[in-house]
Order: sequence, then structure tokens, then C-alpha cells
Amino acid sequence: TNGQRYGIHPFIVQIRSLVDHSSLPGITLGDIGPKFGYNTTDNGFLRFDRFRVPREAMLMRYAQVDMQGHYTRPPHPKLNYLTMVKVRSGLLYSSGVYLAMACCIAIRYSAVRQQGYHPGENPTEVPENTILNYQLQAYRLTTQLANAFAFWIAGKQQTELFEYLNSQIEIGELDLLAEVHATVSCLKAFSTWACADGIEECRKSCGGHGYLRVSGLPDLFARAVPMCTFEGDNYVLIQQTIRYQLKQLQKHRLHPLAAIPASFDYILDLESFAMQQLVIDEPLQWLDPLLHETILKHRAIRLLVELHAQLEALQDQGRSDAEAWNDLQSEFVRVARAHGFLVIARTFSSCVTNVPDIELRAVLRDVYNVFILRHIEDNVSEFMEDGFMNGIHSREIRVIVRDLIANLRPNLVPLVDSFNFSDSKLWYSVLGRYDGQVYSALYETTKKDARNASDVTPAYKYIQ
Amino acid sequence: TNGQRYGIHPFIVQIRSLVDHSSLPGITLGDIGPKFGYNTTDNGFLRFDRFRVPREAMLMRYAQVDMQGHYTRPPHPKLNYLTMVKVRSGLLYSSGVYLAMACCIAIRYSAVRQQGYHPGENPTEVPENTILNYQLQAYRLTTQLANAFAFWIAGKQQTELFEYLNSQIEIGELDLLAEVHATVSCLKAFSTWACADGIEECRKSCGGHGYLRVSGLPDLFARAVPMCTFEGDNYVLIQQTIRYQLKQLQKHRLHPLAAIPASFDYILDLESFAMQQLVIDEPLQWLDPLLHETILKHRAIRLLVELHAQLEALQDQGRSDAEAWNDLQSEFVRVARAHGFLVIARTFSSCVTNVPDIELRAVLRDVYNVFILRHIEDNVSEFMEDGFMNGIHSREIRVIVRDLIANLRPNLVPLVDSFNFSDSKLWYSVLGRYDGQVYSALYETTKKDARNASDVTPAYKYIQ
Repeated sequence: TNGQRYGIHPFIVQIRSLVDHSSLPGITLGDIGPKFGYNTTDNGFLRFDRFRVPREAMLMRYAQVDMQGHYTRPPHPKLNYLTMVKVRSGLLYSSGVYLAMACCIAIRYSAVRQQGYHPGENPTEVPENTILNYQLQAYRLTTQLANAFAFWIAGKQQTELFEYLNSQIEIGELDLLAEVHATVSCLKAFSTWACADGIEECRKSCGGHGYLRVSGLPDLFARAVPMCTFEGDNYVLIQQTIRYQLKQLQKHRLHPLAAIPASFDYILDLESFAMQQLVIDEPLQWLDPLLHETILKHRAIRLLVELHAQLEALQDQGRSDAEAWNDLQSEFVRVARAHGFLVIARTFSSCVTNVPDIELRAVLRDVYNVFILRHIEDNVSEFMEDGFMNGIHSREIRVIVRDLIANLRPNLVPLVDSFNFSDSKLWYSVLGRYDGQVYSALYETTKKDARNASDVTPAYKYIQ
Repeated sequence: TNGQRYGIHPFIVQIRSLVDHSSLPGITLGDIGPKFGYNTTDNGFLRFDRFRVPREAMLMRYAQVDMQGHYTRPPHPKLNYLTMVKVRSGLLYSSGVYLAMACCIAIRYSAVRQQGYHPGENPTEVPENTILNYQLQAYRLTTQLANAFAFWIAGKQQTELFEYLNSQIEIGELDLLAEVHATVSCLKAFSTWACADGIEECRKSCGGHGYLRVSGLPDLFARAVPMCTFEGDNYVLIQQTIRYQLKQLQKHRLHPLAAIPASFDYILDLESFAMQQLVIDEPLQWLDPLLHETILKHRAIRLLVELHAQLEALQDQGRSDAEAWNDLQSEFVRVARAHGFLVIARTFSSCVTNVPDIELRAVLRDVYNVFILRHIEDNVSEFMEDGFMNGIHSREIRVIVRDLIANLRPNLVPLVDSFNFSDSKLWYSVLGRYDGQVYSALYETTKKDARNASDVTPAYKYIQ
């Protein structure tokens, strides 16, 4: 306004006639065409050609332009992050729910399907094995189930945090916004990635039947996977987290007594972390949530400090800020992940602690343990690289995980039942039916297929 | 036959009338319905009800049943593995080609698309960055490109090996069959997984445009991903490799002088591997293919020996063979992967060595180095767990990888051009066009969409 640029602002603009719905002069629009999924959502393209947008079209709750063209800044420069925080918290939550749906379908089907023998088993003596009794099947699906619980719980917590944040902003308190934005950015990234990959793992665990549309799983994947690229591409989002992490580290370096946001408290270990070495006296310690916190905090500060040192080293070699930042992008994922999984682990663990029922709490504690130990197992080099953990630890973790998976086996179906998804919520997945009547239902669906309407295809006459 | 079971045998059976194409009495058949992909392939279901299959319907090249019902075994009990070996070699090859297609689309588009700034860059001073110049984008796509080369080359080599195997079998030589079957089983598994995941990574790297069907990438994924579950589910296939690995280990233990198949030669390091420790005097050593071989062989024997020890320990604790096998299934992936990637690395490296053109060889050597070092980077804990490698090594590898990625950046487009895919071979992907005219082509495709045939949807009259 008045020849000055103020950045991006939201507008709500009339693009079609209210009389006959035709597009207004100067407007070109249309549907962008068929997509992987979301085909009932009419994503469009839009072009303005000498089209005048009136001042009233601007959404002026925070930033404002008056009749004279004077611009008033929003009360806080980051206020427009608020919507993004809300949407991204929602995607974290959705990641948990979508993944839970996939787990429900795959675990129920795996409890129904019987196939194959172990080496040495005689087909004439024993029936084929229920596939959920194969350790590898249970291992794969329990891992995904634990992730589903983790993201669902973290999503619920972040959504509540958003409500609190919003109420704080109403009274002019904006301190929390930057912290929550930095955390939610990476939680959105890691949960949506894990959700899409996890749905695929569930789908593959159903074998060829998971490739059928009636399983619900292909469509569920196509629905969930764009969360990785929309509302901020994941690889861009993690850079928001990194920037905030580095800023807090810098602050602590300069002012050791300055307050550090609670969820970034590992930065306070700056002086002590390098001396830490994990000591495990007996394997049961691996189930201690305080130990997990120690481990995750150590990784978070260690990776952050190393990234910071690498950035500085490159700048000392004459690379500009932008160049050094670009050079090290491939290091970012693990640094942001260290923060994100610390937040999720804390949320999940304290949620379990607050479960009143003792027996239920014990089961959910096992689910939490699978979540955190599988995460450590999959990324164990990040804990070993600086000598904090060693190869005895990594082997011990795998043994514990195998025990946890075996323990949880009888609870897998009850755990997915606990989500209380109706068959319709599971998109009438043939494999995920609550009644377990998979094969008759599968056969019934083929009768509805147009290609099966007649025994001989109508096209037969052309090839006779 | 004659009341005796002889296992599964192939038949070719007439199921429809030759007169009017109707299904024969006793036959129920139909299409299984819509799938994730392959919808132009009419996968069907089939039920026999008191339907007599004549003896002539049996494919009797190897196993035979004569008029009196006498059964003749095939000359080698594993002969029916031959078809599986052929098909799985083909899938390894296809994994390379499909992934190369995705890389071609994503890399070309990433060289066209410009978006965003690095921190500190001023939008009024510089244009937006070409996204392939973001280090993370190049890192992601170069990794996939290197995998594509690796699987393509390994697939070609295994297909040639199959031809040789086939010619050997013609003259009664069957020694190679079991070895090739064990290797191809895991190569099919790891290449198809990496192919599907890699196509998704390429698709995501195109942002929202990768979600459009006209990008070709969603359909490419749906086409490639069932390779993970068909022709032997990957998790089942790796167990074939494990069983053979264990058998060779056992053989070597009992008869240290017995011949071990060449591709399993790491088993000969049984006595020495535990004393090995990697010594790197200067970073350039990381580019030495002999060093890679040493590293991969060490992992292969180390993981195999540990798996074997765990199996024995469980049996000593009273678990049956089948139970112990099941208990440890979650350990199998890494043991089989250690074998598979050793085979691929050797094939890839020797292929590069044989490239006559020096400059081309240097570029392909970099691609090979990205392949092998990214693999080691992603699985570095497997090399560190027993103290063979350390945290200085893992950090050095990441630095080298970043240098390699930066070096290869100018060659990325030429490398995907070298596949010589026509636009039609890329399914007319709008993003992967050879001419780079992405945006005008994208806009043109929307004009062909039925939803854009009229400015106002015909449904408008119902909502007026």
C-alpha cells in the first residue's frame, strides 16, 4: 500500500457472479485435474488479469489498511503463525487417527488370515499359522500401533495447547507462540511421514488383499500422504524448528541464566552433556521413562551443538550464512527429529502415567515402551556416535523390544478395538470388519463389480 | 497321485468354452475388483467344484505323471525355483527402471521449478532458488538416482546370470541354482522396497504437483509397489536367503575346507572377522571400493554369526527349531540385507570399473560412491555395534556424502537424460517433459478435464 511492500496477507475475494455463477471478468479458473486422492475436493487454479480487489476483501483482524492506505502492523509479527499452528496440530492428530485406522484394519485381518508354516512344521499335522502369530508380522504392526497411539495422544495434547495459546493471545500474551510454532512444525513433519509410511506398512502386511481398493488401505494412503507436502512441506517445516533450536542455543550461550522454553530444556545441558555416558546395570532399566528422557535429551543437545559447530566452521571457511545453511540441510532431519520425539515421548509417557486403571495402564505402558524403544532402535547410531550408548545397549534394546512385542500380542486386537471405529469409519474396509467375516465379504464385493455382471464380457463378440 | 501327495505342481486348465466363452460347468470365476493399480490387468478369482482336470493339463517338462499314475520326480528338487529366479531377477531390473523413471521426472522438474529463499536472502534482490540447488533436494534425489543405477545394473547382471544358469541346467549342471535363488530372493526384496519408497520420495520432492495424476508419479507408485508383496512377499523371501546363509555357515563350521559359493565368501572370514577394526588414515579412503567390500563383508559375517548364536541360545533354552526361528524373525531383515547389498555393491562397482570412457567413469564412480556411502550412512549402527566402525567414521561419511552430492549436482540432469526415456515412456508426465515446458503443459492438461468443459458446472441449476 502507498507503494510499500508489507508481505503476504489474506483476502477473501468474490470470483464468481452471484447471479449466474459465471466467473467474473478478469478471472480465469478451473479444476486442476485428477489427483492421487482427494478427488471429491475441487482444488482449482485461479488467475487474476487486471482484476480489482477491494480493500474490504482483506481479512483485517490483525494487520489493517485504512481508507487512506495507511498500513497498521499486527500486534505481533508472528500472529499469522496462529492459523498454521492450529492446522498443523490438527494434522498431527489426524496422523494418529489415520494410522490407527490402518492398524485396526491390518491387525484384525492378520488375526483372521492363516497362511504358511515355520521350517520343520508338517502341513499334514498342524493347521497353517495365523499370520499375526508370526513374530515379524506382530513386530511390524505393533510398531505402527505404538506410533498411532503416540501421534494421537500428542495431537490431542497439542490441540489443547493451541486452545490455551489462543486464550493467552486474547489477553495479549504471545510468549508461547514461537515455542509452540517451532515444536508443532516438526511434529507435523515427523507424524505425517510416519503416518504415510505406516499405512503403507500396514497395507503391505495384508499381502495382495491390501492392494484391493475394498481393503480401504490404498485410499487411506492416498488420503494421508499429501499431509507430508501440504500445509508446509515437511522438509521446509523442520527448518523452522532448527532455526528456533539454534536461536535458543545461542541465547543460552550468551546469557546462561536466561529462561529457555520448557520443551527445549535439553539446551540447559550444554555444559554437561559431553561428559554423559549411559550406564545400564540391568535390562529392566530400559523400561524407565526417566531413562528415555535422559537418552533423548542427550541426543537433542548433542546433535544441536554439532550442527551449530558445523555451521560456524563453514562460516569461518568463508561461506555466507545462506550458503552454510544450504550446505548442511541434509543434517537437519535428525536434529529436528531429536526435538520432536522428545516432546512426543514426554507427552505419551505422562498420559500413560495418568491412566487410573492399573491393568490398562500396564498395557499402555508396554505400548509406550514399544514406541520409544523402537524409535531408539531405528535411530540407534545417533545415540552411539559420540559414545553415549554402545553396542551392548543396542543389542539389549532389541531383546527387550522382542519381549515387549510378544507380551503385547494377546492385546493387539483389543487395543485396536479400543479405538471404537465403526465399520463405516473404516470406510467399510472388507479386511477390517469388526465381525471378522473377511472372506465371505470379499466374495460379496466382487458380485457388485460391473465386470462380473455377466459371465461373458460384452466385448467378447469383437474378438470372436 | 495313487493316494500320495507330492506337493504343488503347475497345470494349464481350460476354464471357458471354446464355442461361446462361457465358464465351464463346475467353474466359478470373476474379476477380483478394483485395485490400487494394474486395473487393466484382469486379476480374477476361480473356484473348482467337482471339476475334473485331465492329466494332460499338467506341465510335465520336469515332474511327470504317466498313464498309470506313476509319479516321476524332477531331476532336481529345486528345479521349479528356476521360474521364480527368472521372475525375481526381472523384478530387480524393473525396480531399477521404475525408480529411474521417477528420478527422471523429479530431477527434471526440480531443475525447472524455482521457489523460496535461504535465510538472509532478500526477495527484492535475488530471484527465487531453483529447487534442485537446495542441498536437501539434491541429497534426496541423488540418493534415489544412485539406487536406480544400482538396481538397474544388478538386475541386468542377474538376468544374464539367469541365462547362464539356464544353459547350465540344459546340460544337467544345477550347482548354481540354490546360490542364485538365495541371492535373487533378497535382491528382489530390497530392490522392490527401495523402489517403492524411492518413487514416493521423488513424488514428494515435487510438492503438490507430484500429487497430480498428470505428473505420472502416483500411477508409477501404484504400479511399482505391489512388487513388494507379489512373486513372494518380501518378508518371506528374505527368509530364503537367511536359511541358505545359515546352511553355508554351518557347512563351513563343520568342513572348513568345503567350497563356499563365491557371493557368500564372507563366511570364510568366520575366524578372523571378530578381530577386525576399521582404520581410516585419511578421508579419501572412503572412496575405495575395496574398502567398501571389506566393510560390507565384515557386517555380513558378523550379523550372520550373531543370528546363529541367538538361534542356538534359544534352542538351548528349550525352544523348538520353529519357535526359535519365529522368535528372531525381526532380526532377519538386517542379516539378509547385509548379503544383498554386498552383491549389489560388487556388481555396481565392477560395472563402473569396466566403463571405457574416463570422464564418464568418473561420474559413474561418484554415483556408485553415493549409493554405497548413503547405504552405510543409513545403516551405520550395524557397522558400529561391534566396534568395527566408530563415531568419527560415521561423521566423516556424512561429510564425504555431502561433497559427492555437491559434485554430482551439475550432472544430475545429464544422468537422467542418459536413460534415454521418451516422454511416452515416462507416461507423458507433465513434470518430466524433456523440453522442460512444465507450466504451459500443466495448464493445457486442465483444459482436457471434463470438469473444466464449461465455466459453470451443469450441477449449478440444482443449487440455485
